[in-house]
Amino acid sequence: MGTEEHLMVPIKKLKAFSRKVFMHFGVNEQDAGVASDVLATADLRGIDSHGVARLITYHDMLELGRINPEPEITITRESASTATVDGDNGLGLVVGPKANAMAISKAREAGSGWVSVCNTNHFGAAGHYVLEALEHDMIGWAMTNSTKLVAPLWGAERMLGTNPIAIGFPGLEQPPIVIDMASCAAAYGKVEIAIRKQEQVPHGWIIDKDGHQTVDPQAMVDGGAILPLGSMRDQGGHKGYCLAVMVDVLSCVLSGANWGPFAPPFALRQEIPGRSVGRGIGHFFGAMRIDAFIDPDEFKRQIDEYIAVFRATKPEPGTDGPLIPGDPEREAEAERRENGVPVLLPVINDIRTVAEKTGLDPEF
Amino acid sequence: MGTEEHLMVPIKKLKAFSRKVFMHFGVNEQDAGVASDVLATADLRGIDSHGVARLITYHDMLELGRINPEPEITITRESASTATVDGDNGLGLVVGPKANAMAISKAREAGSGWVSVCNTNHFGAAGHYVLEALEHDMIGWAMTNSTKLVAPLWGAERMLGTNPIAIGFPGLEQPPIVIDMASCAAAYGKVEIAIRKQEQVPHGWIIDKDGHQTVDPQAMVDGGAILPLGSMRDQGGHKGYCLAVMVDVLSCVLSGANWGPFAPPFALRQEIPGRSVGRGIGHFFGAMRIDAFIDPDEFKRQIDEYIAVFRATKPEPGTDGPLIPGDPEREAEAERRENGVPVLLPVINDIRTVAEKTGLDPEF
Repeated sequence: MGTEEHLMVPIKKLKAFSRKVFMHFGVNEQDAGVASDVLATADLRGIDSHGVARLITYHDMLELGRINPEPEITITRESASTATVDGDNGLGLVVGPKANAMAISKAREAGSGWVSVCNTNHFGAAGHYVLEALEHDMIGWAMTNSTKLVAPLWGAERMLGTNPIAIGFPGLEQPPIVIDMASCAAAYGKVEIAIRKQEQVPHGWIIDKDGHQTVDPQAMVDGGAILPLGSMRDQGGHKGYCLAVMVDVLSCVLSGANWGPFAPPFALRQEIPGRSVGRGIGHFFGAMRIDAFIDPDEFKRQIDEYIAVFRATKPEPGTDGPLIPGDPEREAEAERRENGVPVLLPVINDIRTVAEKTGLDPEF
Repeated sequence: MGTEEHLMVPIKKLKAFSRKVFMHFGVNEQDAGVASDVLATADLRGIDSHGVARLITYHDMLELGRINPEPEITITRESASTATVDGDNGLGLVVGPKANAMAISKAREAGSGWVSVCNTNHFGAAGHYVLEALEHDMIGWAMTNSTKLVAPLWGAERMLGTNPIAIGFPGLEQPPIVIDMASCAAAYGKVEIAIRKQEQVPHGWIIDKDGHQTVDPQAMVDGGAILPLGSMRDQGGHKGYCLAVMVDVLSCVLSGANWGPFAPPFALRQEIPGRSVGRGIGHFFGAMRIDAFIDPDEFKRQIDEYIAVFRATKPEPGTDGPLIPGDPEREAEAERRENGVPVLLPVINDIRTVAEKTGLDPEF
C-alpha cells in the first residue's frame, strides 16, 4: 500500500456495501452474502486487486447483463469423486463457492473431490476457496483461468491468463500453509502501479508488442504481455508456461470453458475475443480428506514442525530468512481486522460511482 | 548432448543390462523389467540425468543393502479415491509404478485416484508415470521429493529437493501435452556440466554457501544451493519455493516420509541427514478419468485445437515460437528409437564398473 492516498474502511462496511450491490441486481440474499464474503477475504488478506477494487467491474457486468444474477447451476457429469459444473454464466463469486462445496462434499464421501467448472466468471482470490477446505480438515486446491495477459515462452503475444494455483495445508498449533500464486512472473496490478508512479519494472517481467523484453510498463500495456513465471528460457520461463497450460486445461478444456486466448475478459475496456471455443471461463477445485491418507493430528503436527524447521533456515544476507506461504496474508488480516482496510482513493471513487448509479449508500 | 564424447547404444541393450543388474541383486524378473522400463523412458526421451546414468547409484545402493530388492509394498490407509502406500524401502522404480497403478485403478472405480507414498527411493523421471495414465484415457499426475539441493526464497542453505511436477493430457490426432518440470530454477546436472566445461552459469540459478547470488557453478557445489523457479523475489522466486513446498507436503507429510532437508540422499557421496522425520522419501500420484468430467473425444479434440492455436502464436523475435510441453522429449524419442541413445563416456565407464562388479555383460 505504501504511501499512496487511501481511506481506512472497516471490513464490515465494505462487505455490507458489496452485498447490497449484488442484491440490487437481483442476486438473492444468500448468494450476495457469499459473494461479498469472497471479496472480503481478499480485502482482509491484502490481495487488494481481488477485493472491493473489482466491485465496479462486477457492477458494470451485471448492469450490462453480461453476468446472470440468478444462475441455475447444474452438474453436467459426475462420478464418485468428480463433477463438471455449468455455472450458467453466474457470478464467479457465487458459482465458485458452490462448486468448491461440491468438491468438499465429494471428498467427504469418496476421500477426494474434484470439480471442473465452465460458464462462469471471475471468482475472486483463489486462496479463499482453499481456506474453506481447511475448515473441513481437508487439503484444498483452487485454480482458474482469466483473460489473456501472459505470453507463452518464445511467444510475442498474450495467449494465457495469469492462471493462479492455490493449495492449503492445515497445521495444529501453527496457522495453515496457504499457497496462492499466479503462474506468471508478476501481477498486472504491479505493472499498473509502476505506470502510475512513472517507474520502470524489474527485468524479466514483461515484453513489448513485438516480443522484446522491456522494463517500460507502458510498453506492456500497449499490446505487450507479461512473461510466465521464470521469465526467459535460461531461468525457467518454460516452466511457468507449463504451469499456466496445466491450470488452463484443468479449468477449461476439462469443463468445456474458453481456454487460452479465448477467455472472455473481465473488464469493459478489454476486447472480447472474436472466437469462442466453450462457455465462459473455467475453474478447477479439489479437496482431499486428510484422514483418507493419514491420521490428521499426525499430519498437522508434522506441518507445525515443517513451519518451525523452515523458519529456522539460515537467512540470505540482508533478509530475515524465508517466510512460510501465507505469512503476508495472515499479517495483513490481523492488521486489517483491527484497523480497517486501506482502500486507495481511485477505488473509493469507483465505489462512489457505484453508489451513485445504484442509489445505494456505502455509509463511509 | 552437444559435442561431448559419447557412444550410441540401442535402447534395447541399455534396458536389458539394467534389468540384469536389478535381478542380480534379487529383484524379481517382473519388477526388474518394470524398473528398467522406467529408466529407458528417461533415456529415450532425452532426460539423460534420470536414465541409465543413474544405474551405478542404484547398483551401489542395492550392493550396500540401502535399498530393499524384495519389498513388501503395503497400503496403510485408503478410501474410494485415495491410498497411502508404504514402499518398504524398495526401489522407487518398482514402488512408483505399483503406486501409480493403484491411482489408475482407483480412478477407474471412483473417477479419480490419489496415492501418497512413503518409504521409497528415487523413482526415475516423473514424466514416465503420467504417460502410463494417458494409456488409460486419464490425466496423470506425478510428483516426488528428493535430496536437498534448493534454497527457499530468502534462505541461504539447501532445504528442499528439486521436487518435480508432471502432468499429462491426451490429444486425439496430436500427441499428448506432457509437462515434467522441476520446481527449481535449473537442474543440478546443468551446474555440473558448467563445471566440466569451465563455464559460468546464467544469473538467477544459484547461490554460494553464504547465500550470495553467484554465476560460479563450483560455489554452488561447495555448500551453496540452487534457487527456486523464479530465482529472486522480484522475478517470483517465492512462487517456485511455494511449488516445492506443495510437492513436498503432498509427497511426504501426507504419506509419512522424510520432507524438506531430511530426505535421505540418492548418492553415496551425499551426507545422510542427522535427523529423520519419517520413512524414506515420498511420491504423490494422481489419475483422473477424463470421461468422469467430459466426453473424452471432445476433450481430445480441444487438446488438438489447443496445440494448433499455441503453435500459431506470433513468435518472439529470433525464435521459432512456443513449443508444446513434451515436444523436446518426443523429438528425442523419435530420434533415439531410430539411432540409439548417445551415452556419455563417463556414464559408459560407470556401466563398465557395474559390469565388472556384477560379472554381467552389457553387450556393448
